[in-house]
Amino acid sequence: MNKNTLQNLINDKKFTLIKDKINNMNIPDIAELLEELDSSSALLIFRLLNKKIAAKVFTYVSRDNQERLLLLFNEDELNQLTDKLFLDEKVDLLEEMPSNVVKRILKTTDESERKIINQFLKYPKDSAGSLMTIEFIDLKKELTVSESLERIKKLGYHRETIYTTYVITNTRILEGIVELKELVLENDNKNIENIMNKNVIYVNTHDDQEYVASIFRKYDLLSIPVVDNEKRLVGIITVDDIMDVIELENTEDIHKMAAIEPSHTNYLNESIFDLAKRRIVWLLVLMISATFTGIILSNYEDTLESVVALTFFIPMLMDTGGNAGSQASTLIIRSITLGEIEFKDIFKVISKEFGVSFIVGIILAVLNFLRIHFIQGYSVKISLTVTTTLLLTIMLAKIVGGILPLLAKKAKLDPALMASPLVTTIVDTFSLIVYFRIATLILKL
Amino acid sequence: MNKNTLQNLINDKKFTLIKDKINNMNIPDIAELLEELDSSSALLIFRLLNKKIAAKVFTYVSRDNQERLLLLFNEDELNQLTDKLFLDEKVDLLEEMPSNVVKRILKTTDESERKIINQFLKYPKDSAGSLMTIEFIDLKKELTVSESLERIKKLGYHRETIYTTYVITNTRILEGIVELKELVLENDNKNIENIMNKNVIYVNTHDDQEYVASIFRKYDLLSIPVVDNEKRLVGIITVDDIMDVIELENTEDIHKMAAIEPSHTNYLNESIFDLAKRRIVWLLVLMISATFTGIILSNYEDTLESVVALTFFIPMLMDTGGNAGSQASTLIIRSITLGEIEFKDIFKVISKEFGVSFIVGIILAVLNFLRIHFIQGYSVKISLTVTTTLLLTIMLAKIVGGILPLLAKKAKLDPALMASPLVTTIVDTFSLIVYFRIATLILKL
Repeated sequence: MNKNTLQNLINDKKFTLIKDKINNMNIPDIAELLEELDSSSALLIFRLLNKKIAAKVFTYVSRDNQERLLLLFNEDELNQLTDKLFLDEKVDLLEEMPSNVVKRILKTTDESERKIINQFLKYPKDSAGSLMTIEFIDLKKELTVSESLERIKKLGYHRETIYTTYVITNTRILEGIVELKELVLENDNKNIENIMNKNVIYVNTHDDQEYVASIFRKYDLLSIPVVDNEKRLVGIITVDDIMDVIELENTEDIHKMAAIEPSHTNYLNESIFDLAKRRIVWLLVLMISATFTGIILSNYEDTLESVVALTFFIPMLMDTGGNAGSQASTLIIRSITLGEIEFKDIFKVISKEFGVSFIVGIILAVLNFLRIHFIQGYSVKISLTVTTTLLLTIMLAKIVGGILPLLAKKAKLDPALMASPLVTTIVDTFSLIVYFRIATLILKL
Repeated sequence: MNKNTLQNLINDKKFTLIKDKINNMNIPDIAELLEELDSSSALLIFRLLNKKIAAKVFTYVSRDNQERLLLLFNEDELNQLTDKLFLDEKVDLLEEMPSNVVKRILKTTDESERKIINQFLKYPKDSAGSLMTIEFIDLKKELTVSESLERIKKLGYHRETIYTTYVITNTRILEGIVELKELVLENDNKNIENIMNKNVIYVNTHDDQEYVASIFRKYDLLSIPVVDNEKRLVGIITVDDIMDVIELENTEDIHKMAAIEPSHTNYLNESIFDLAKRRIVWLLVLMISATFTGIILSNYEDTLESVVALTFFIPMLMDTGGNAGSQASTLIIRSITLGEIEFKDIFKVISKEFGVSFIVGIILAVLNFLRIHFIQGYSVKISLTVTTTLLLTIMLAKIVGGILPLLAKKAKLDPALMASPLVTTIVDTFSLIVYFRIATLILKL
C-alpha cells in the first residue's frame, strides 16, 4: 500500500479496511508510510495497529517523527508503548529525546527498571554496553536439552533472540553458549554441559562498537555475549544492531576522509547551519596550511617574473600530486580499517608505494613531456623541469599518503583523518619547493 | 595458541596434543594460524583437524593459501573436503581457482551436482544467484508444527541455517516463511499454514548484491529467500554472507571516490604492477583535464606578468575549492548509497549547498581578507580580488559537488565516481576563470 491509497482510505474513513491492511504489512514498510503522513494521520494509523506491532514500528520511525508522535500520545498509549519496547530500545529513546519527553517516559517505568536504565546510560557512547540488550535466555549447565527447550518456550516471547542461549554459573559467570540449532537437533536427555561450546567469544561492556563489529565479521556471529570485568554476563548484542553499526562506522570514515565532522543525521533533515559547522573547521585549518604555498611562491617572485610559463603548470602539478597522494592514503586507510595492514607493515608499504609511484610517475611524466615539448612547443628545459617535478611529486605524494595513516594509527589518532585533504595540502607545499629548486637548477636562474 | 607455540609443538612432534588443542579452537582462529605457517606445517595441521572442522576452516583460508593446500592434497583428502563443503562454497572455490585445480575438484563431483554447479556459474557476478546457497529447509503448509520439527531434525545437519524455514507448493512456488522461533514457541499440533508469514520478503536470482544488502538492512533479516522469474524458490542468502558484501561494497565505494579501480585483493598481497594499473587510468584522465588550467593561465599571461602577486594565491584558492567541493560531493554520494537522497531531491540539495557554501564562504573570505590585507600588506584591490574569488569558488564547488553525484545517479552511472578528484578538477578550471575575470575587473587590467 502506498501513501496515496492510504490517504484516500483515511479520507473515506474506511478504518476497518485500513486496520486489516496495515497490520499485515512488514514493520519497516509501515514505518516508512508513517514517515510520509501528517501528524494526525500518523497518530490515527498508529492507533489502528496492534499494540505489539505498534511498538516495533515505533523503533523503525525516525527520531524526529518519534518525538512528534510521543508528544501526541496520551498517558495510556505511552504506557502501552514503553511496556512493549525492549530495554535497549527504551534506553536509545531516552538518550535521543528532549527532556520533556524523557520525563514522560520515565514516569511509565518502575524503580527497579529505572535503576537498570540509569546503569545503561552510564556506558560510554559507542561502547558494547550502550549497544547491548538484557533480554536474552540464560541456562544452567545441569539442565537437559528438553528442560532447556521448556525454559526457552516459557521465556522466549520476551527475548530479542532465542537462537543463541547462554550458560552461566550461580554467580552469573559466563561458562558457555548453546545454539538453538543444537538443542533442536540433539537428543532430548543430553546435558547442556555436554553440548555447550566452552570456547565462547565475548566482548566487554567497555569495548568499542567498531571492535565488536570486527569480531562479528570475523566469526560470522548472529549475537555476542557482553560481560563485565568479572566475566559476569550482563547482556548480548544481536547482528541486526551490528549491521547498523557497520554502516554508521563506514559513514563516519567516509565523512572524515573528506574533512567533514561525522554526523548520523540524514542530510535532508540537517539544518544549513549544522551542515556549515561540520565543514568550516577543517576548511579553515586546511586553508591556513595552504597559505604556506603562497609564501613559497612569493619567495620565488623573481623566478616567476622572468619565466611566467612556470606558473601555467602549477595547477596541473598540484592536482596530479593531490590525486596520487589521495589514492595511496585511501587504500592504506581502508586496509587499516579492515585489519589488513598494521604499523609493523610500514616498510612494506613504503617499498610498494615507491615501486607503484615510480611506474605511474614515469608514464605520466613521459606523456607530459611529449605534450609540453612537441605539442605545446615549450623548450626542452621547461618541459624537463615540469616533468621531473611531476615524477618527484607523484612519488612523494604516494609515499606520504602511504605513511601518514600508519603514523596516525601508531599515535592512536584516527587514520581516516590522514586522507586526501591533508595529504594534498602537505604534498602541494613540498611539490612547489621541488619545482622551483629544479627550475633554478635546469634553467640556471 | 599462537604461531610460535604451535611451531614448537610441531618441531617436538607432539601431534596428539596439537590435535586436541586445535580441534577446540574457533574456526576463524585456526584459519588465521594456518595462514602464518609454511606449506608443509599447514598441511600437517590440516590433516590433524576433524574432517568437518577442516572443511569449515578451509572456507576461511585466503584464496592463495587455498590454492597452495589444494595442490598438496591427495585424491582422498580432496574428496573428503569437497564432500563437506556447502554447494555455494564449492562454487566460490571453482570460480576462484586456476583451471588445473578446478579439474581436480570437478572430478570429485557426480553428474547431478555438476549440473547444479554449472547453473550457479551462469549467474552474473555479484548477483543474488551467485551469492545464494541451496542448502535450506523447505516445508509444506499442510504439516503440523511437530512434523516440521521432525523434518528439521532430519535435515538440519546438512543445512546452512535452520532458523528460517520456507513453505513451498508442489511446484516449488514460495508461499510463506516460518521462523524456527515460532516453531519452538508454538503449539505442537498447529498447522504451518496458520503460523507462516505470507508477506514474504524475497529477491530474484538476478538482483544485484548491493540491493540484497539494502533489503537485509531495512528488514533486519537473518536470511532471505531467492526466487526465479516464476517465483519458484531456488536458494537462500544468509546474513553472514551479506555482512561481507556490505564491507566489499563500502570498500569499492571508498576506492572509487579516491579515483582507484576497486579491487578485493589484500593490499599487501597485490603486486606493484597491479596496484599501478588500478591507479594510472584515472590519474591520466584527471591530469589531461587539469591541463585546461594551464591553457587558461597562459591566456592571462599578460595579467600574470604585470601582477605576479596574483600567482601566490592560486594554490590556496584551488585547495580550498577542492576541499569544499569534495565535502559536498562526499556527503551526497554517501546519502545516495544509504538511500537517503534521490534525484528528485536535487533542488533541496542545491538550496542547502547554496546556504551552507554562503555561510562557510563568507567566514573564510573575511578571515582571508584580514590576513592578506592587514598582515601580509597586500593592497585592498588584490585582497578583494582573492577573497571574492574564494567566496565564489567555494559556492561553485559545493553546488557542483552536490549536483554531480545526483546527475550521475540519474544517468545510471556510479555516483561514487563524482567524488573529490573529478570535482576538484572541474572546480579548479572554473575558479581560475573567475579569478582572472575579477582581477581584470577590479585591477582594471
